[in-house]
Amino acid sequence: MKNQNFADRVINYDSSVLAELFIESSNPANTSFAGGYPDQQLFPSADITAAFARAINANTPGIFQYTDAKGPLALRTILAQRHSQRAGVPVVADDLLITQGGQQAIDLITRLFINPGDGVALEGPTYVGAISAFESYAPTYYEIPMEADGLDINKLEADLKANRGANRIKLLYTIPDFQNPTGITLSTAKRQRLAQLAVEYDFYILEDSPYRDLRYRGEELPTIQSFDTDHRVLFVSSFSKILSPGLRIGYLVADREMLSELAGLKSANDVQSPNMTMEALADYLTEHDLDAHINKMKPVYTEKCHAMVSALRKYMPAEITFTEPEGGFFLWLTGPTNLDLNKFMHDVLLPEAHIVFVPSEPQYAVTKVTNCARLNYSNVPLEKIEPGIKQLATYFKAYLAEN
Amino acid sequence: MKNQNFADRVINYDSSVLAELFIESSNPANTSFAGGYPDQQLFPSADITAAFARAINANTPGIFQYTDAKGPLALRTILAQRHSQRAGVPVVADDLLITQGGQQAIDLITRLFINPGDGVALEGPTYVGAISAFESYAPTYYEIPMEADGLDINKLEADLKANRGANRIKLLYTIPDFQNPTGITLSTAKRQRLAQLAVEYDFYILEDSPYRDLRYRGEELPTIQSFDTDHRVLFVSSFSKILSPGLRIGYLVADREMLSELAGLKSANDVQSPNMTMEALADYLTEHDLDAHINKMKPVYTEKCHAMVSALRKYMPAEITFTEPEGGFFLWLTGPTNLDLNKFMHDVLLPEAHIVFVPSEPQYAVTKVTNCARLNYSNVPLEKIEPGIKQLATYFKAYLAEN
Repeated sequence: MKNQNFADRVINYDSSVLAELFIESSNPANTSFAGGYPDQQLFPSADITAAFARAINANTPGIFQYTDAKGPLALRTILAQRHSQRAGVPVVADDLLITQGGQQAIDLITRLFINPGDGVALEGPTYVGAISAFESYAPTYYEIPMEADGLDINKLEADLKANRGANRIKLLYTIPDFQNPTGITLSTAKRQRLAQLAVEYDFYILEDSPYRDLRYRGEELPTIQSFDTDHRVLFVSSFSKILSPGLRIGYLVADREMLSELAGLKSANDVQSPNMTMEALADYLTEHDLDAHINKMKPVYTEKCHAMVSALRKYMPAEITFTEPEGGFFLWLTGPTNLDLNKFMHDVLLPEAHIVFVPSEPQYAVTKVTNCARLNYSNVPLEKIEPGIKQLATYFKAYLAEN
Repeated sequence: MKNQNFADRVINYDSSVLAELFIESSNPANTSFAGGYPDQQLFPSADITAAFARAINANTPGIFQYTDAKGPLALRTILAQRHSQRAGVPVVADDLLITQGGQQAIDLITRLFINPGDGVALEGPTYVGAISAFESYAPTYYEIPMEADGLDINKLEADLKANRGANRIKLLYTIPDFQNPTGITLSTAKRQRLAQLAVEYDFYILEDSPYRDLRYRGEELPTIQSFDTDHRVLFVSSFSKILSPGLRIGYLVADREMLSELAGLKSANDVQSPNMTMEALADYLTEHDLDAHINKMKPVYTEKCHAMVSALRKYMPAEITFTEPEGGFFLWLTGPTNLDLNKFMHDVLLPEAHIVFVPSEPQYAVTKVTNCARLNYSNVPLEKIEPGIKQLATYFKAYLAEN
């Protein structure tokens, strides 16, 4: 039992499953489909290393001192230009806050809006790290099921209509592009409708889009923020997937009043991010073509994604269905409803095949769903994907026959 | 009026005073006694720059990937050795969590213990950034007045005795060494008694000691944690004052069960700190003698501290008293109780003399105290201290005569 002096947010949240998965996923003896890591062969290591050297030398000694909580103006200016072009929303440096990865942006936005008991609507399933951030602020969850074209917007509207009182939905969390964990992309019609609903029902949208630049096929869709006419959408992205997670740099784009409060909350949280990483990123983005780098990465991930989907098609029993993502890092397996994939993994898969994935249960904030799992392909060596899936399928068949 | 959809923690907390002070303090036209910055002439810039280059080159490409939320083992090992020696508490790497400066450690520890309404005892006055971190978790404050030898321990015990119910004190926040903002040091007897009280009344102590290494005279006192027999003390420190605030590296030392939960909370907050800054610090601490660096800084700060105290003695009217710190960055002015130093600063000092300090009001969580102010000497050029204090004293005299 946990120390009963801990806060409810700690006593009530079991992070041990994820801690264990982290350990199993890092174990080189295992074939891990569990992590959410980019392929580290793709990091432009020499370029980032040189950017650090130039940035530190050019800014000495001020780079070692405190600075503004929002982050360096030069970096915010570059990111504002990029956001204006890529997200279809014209913004300037003062519309952006640099955060410690997208994760801190999620934490701070929740902190900005959510009193204990306030409603947070989120996708079911969703990014498990977002649930862990929300937990600190004790919200009431409204879980919106995922459909083939993204969250079930009719269910969302029904929840908005039915809850107008104290626990009403104040914030919707959505990952519209190649969602973590399902790989599903939200349709344009739903994006547009979400922006309208936010005005009609007086709520805010956290549009979390770290995978947006990693599209492997199909047409890019407009951001939800591009449909926003009422400062309702807070857009969050990150350099963790497209450049380097070790940098810990994300950013959020929001209304000026919100941004000023969010900067104050960041200051209360960690004062500011490190100058060296922020200045190095600014230098990298000035000296190099990030899109050219992304275009070098895409074929590698496209091939990995294709290899996994092909192997699933070839080897998986018909009872197991899966999504076919157009981008991002993940796809989603679904088995018969009575299946418990956490039990399967722990009883059979891990001890016998040394294969690990993320079972569905911790990825739902409300519903207990045991028959699904997230598979990652970005960080699996290409040559391990087909044999890994083949082996996985063999164990699935045997397990389905017995259970 | 703020957006009423914001959380109470944002609607109820006015950070505009501090935001304005930040701007005025950064304005080179002003003489700033307001900041809490180290003297940037003292940063070992070349050594830190070289440490970044070596650390990144030695750890490529893994340094660009995700790692453990606790921080690199090498860094935690070095810090555990240092803490064992300097704080008199034998610990190992697994007893430490690397944080984004001491600020994040304060945030995470509050998150670990405090439900809305739970009691947080703190010094009056205290570090304004700690108040802003606590605000996110809506505690009940118990303000403990400062005496010449640190917090009034009888008042603390009376508060502990009187509040045994729902709002009881779960966490005491104290800065025992050269407190921010008063410069006061907590006596050994009180340190020992605090550790006992924590057991007697079942609460935890956040010992925040970022200035501990910067003692200019007198004998070093034992840490509160060194008297701890029951895992009641969470020790927090930082490299912001002794090496570089731009690095954003702090750490906390706590009981193993707490540490595991705190690592989970850090992961929910920002996943992890950047690898490059952590590895660069590990390299710096391996290749250089941090204590030798600290010993080079101390005479500079000693001289600045002495210059400010001497000037205050020489020029200040008798109605204004001040503390004489044995270390750290700050001292504390106290005027007649009817004086409003925020008004004085805004009406007279800033427009006429371009001098800025931190008035007392935002530095108290509970009591409205207007007649005191924090003065910083660490980041004022030595040659500006005497004339600045002389000018300040002239304005004080005129203002006292009129008010």
